[in-house]
Amino acid sequence: MSNKRIVSGMRPTGKLHLGHFHGVLANWRELQENYECFFFAADWHSLTTEYDNTGGIRDSIREMVLDWLSFGVDPQRSVIFQQSLVPQHAELNLILSMITPVSWLERNPTYKEMQDNLSAKDLSTFGFLGYPVLMAADIILYKAAKVPVGHDQLPHLEITREIARRFNFLYREVFPEPAALLTETPKVLGLDGRKMSKSYGNAIFLSESAEETRKKVQSMVTDTQRVRRSDPGDPDRCVAFSLNRLYIPEDKKAEIYAGCRGAEIGCVECKKLQAEYLVETLAPFRAKREELTTQPGLVEDILAAGSAKAAAEASRTIAEVRDAIRL
Amino acid sequence: MSNKRIVSGMRPTGKLHLGHFHGVLANWRELQENYECFFFAADWHSLTTEYDNTGGIRDSIREMVLDWLSFGVDPQRSVIFQQSLVPQHAELNLILSMITPVSWLERNPTYKEMQDNLSAKDLSTFGFLGYPVLMAADIILYKAAKVPVGHDQLPHLEITREIARRFNFLYREVFPEPAALLTETPKVLGLDGRKMSKSYGNAIFLSESAEETRKKVQSMVTDTQRVRRSDPGDPDRCVAFSLNRLYIPEDKKAEIYAGCRGAEIGCVECKKLQAEYLVETLAPFRAKREELTTQPGLVEDILAAGSAKAAAEASRTIAEVRDAIRL
Ligand code: SF4
Ligand code: SF4
Repeated sequence: MSNKRIVSGMRPTGKLHLGHFHGVLANWRELQENYECFFFAADWHSLTTEYDNTGGIRDSIREMVLDWLSFGVDPQRSVIFQQSLVPQHAELNLILSMITPVSWLERNPTYKEMQDNLSAKDLSTFGFLGYPVLMAADIILYKAAKVPVGHDQLPHLEITREIARRFNFLYREVFPEPAALLTETPKVLGLDGRKMSKSYGNAIFLSESAEETRKKVQSMVTDTQRVRRSDPGDPDRCVAFSLNRLYIPEDKKAEIYAGCRGAEIGCVECKKLQAEYLVETLAPFRAKREELTTQPGLVEDILAAGSAKAAAEASRTIAEVRDAIRL
Repeated sequence: MSNKRIVSGMRPTGKLHLGHFHGVLANWRELQENYECFFFAADWHSLTTEYDNTGGIRDSIREMVLDWLSFGVDPQRSVIFQQSLVPQHAELNLILSMITPVSWLERNPTYKEMQDNLSAKDLSTFGFLGYPVLMAADIILYKAAKVPVGHDQLPHLEITREIARRFNFLYREVFPEPAALLTETPKVLGLDGRKMSKSYGNAIFLSESAEETRKKVQSMVTDTQRVRRSDPGDPDRCVAFSLNRLYIPEDKKAEIYAGCRGAEIGCVECKKLQAEYLVETLAPFRAKREELTTQPGLVEDILAAGSAKAAAEASRTIAEVRDAIRL
């Protein structure tokens, strides 16, 4: 077991947007430098909420993994795999379900919350209730030392740690308790000023064309208190600027502050300028993605090879688990 | 898919007793004549109630399968396997969990009942709640046409049928709905007059010696209204007779009725006579079992070969399932 091993998964929702870039991908790319990383497409997890709408999963996985690769998530350094191609996840999930009290799952703070948020869906399924068990299996199957999480996911990781402890207590010490690797990520606003999210329809996708990106930035809300061109504005009240500040160099930011506050620059022109920095940031990624897209079977091959590597690792753990339980 | 296929499993609880013989084994042996049978040791199911007491599972499986084989459950005709050696059960279990409403499981009549009966155990686990899902996976994984069940298990089979229907409705027609093959089995009383059960400590085990069997029969309660040897008794009120009538030929039964009602025979002598028919019934089984026990690795080899056959069949179903879901 490596004490520098990390496991992290992403549900396949299709093409990724700027929120994913800052929230996950930038972090994954960096983690590769110092850790042995297992990154996976969590397609079984998708079924917890999308069991009645599975037609797009294959395409979603493909688009998502193309985005990963284009951003430098590297199959030479990391194990990139598809959860459902490693059936040991299901096997460990079943075993862990036997020792996990239902009450741990019912008190999971996001359980009720997600049911409320997605009230149009019927999320009263056994699998939805049990997704923290599956998540625990995903992580401890590889004896991960650390798991990159945001603050909001700490309760889930705590359930994983509790399940690992309970297994070790009931049978014998097999699993290390994975520690949280807290990652601070900037808040990424969408076109309408709410958090960027595919489901809000306010997202800028990483793989969009430069032209499309420019258009979207141009459509963003600015400082609503700046009614006329001659009114001074404030970039700190401007939705477009709060997104684009992530890409604008410091000296240019100062210029925009001055130009906006002094009413020296119009919003159309300013957003055009802002968009260029975003477009420039994404340019190498887009070029890489276009190149990768021309290689037929690339994603499938990478996932097949990665899943075989993951399964080899996973089957070692399962053998230990069976021996500990005396199955 | 064979429309003559049957799937049936038994939890490994160790050596089997007369209740298992009449309740399951006699039936299995007969089913082999007309069906393609899949019989399995349900070791993952054991974990639903015995997760904190797993040390004996391996021995229990061995003893149970030796009993099967000794009674003529035949690895040449039937697929005899161990559930946990066929990980596709866990895979299908996970997938079915995504489409199974928690309410179906909570209203399962035996759920509360078993929790109450086994109140000394903590059965509030996620796996215990979900055992009808695992049972559904066990059955439909092989597209069984029929499942041998007693009346008390009909509600479970109904959940299996509902889950199969729901899968077919959500994705596409993959699973036949397994039909109940209702089996009438005689009530088998234990030494104390309650239902024979290992946990009551009132069982006569199939693999016990003739001597031990005779002793146990001799210890059985007789007609409690027959106080003195000279009192007439009634075999219909006699616990020993209600068990042993299953083994006594009709003409001998008539003799016992006459002898008991006419106070012509004493209970000690009568039970000695009764025991001989039981001992005789079990004799060929015991001889076979002794022979099988001398073959080292026999059970392990049969389970390994059977599990490989089962897994080949199961992986065909899983491929269809993945294709239907579009994973
Ligand atoms: S000038 Fe620029 S920063 Fe100021 S409100 Fe307009 S778009 Fe926003
Ligand atoms: S004589 Fe035989 S049948 Fe009658 S009560 Fe005694 S043991 Fe039972």
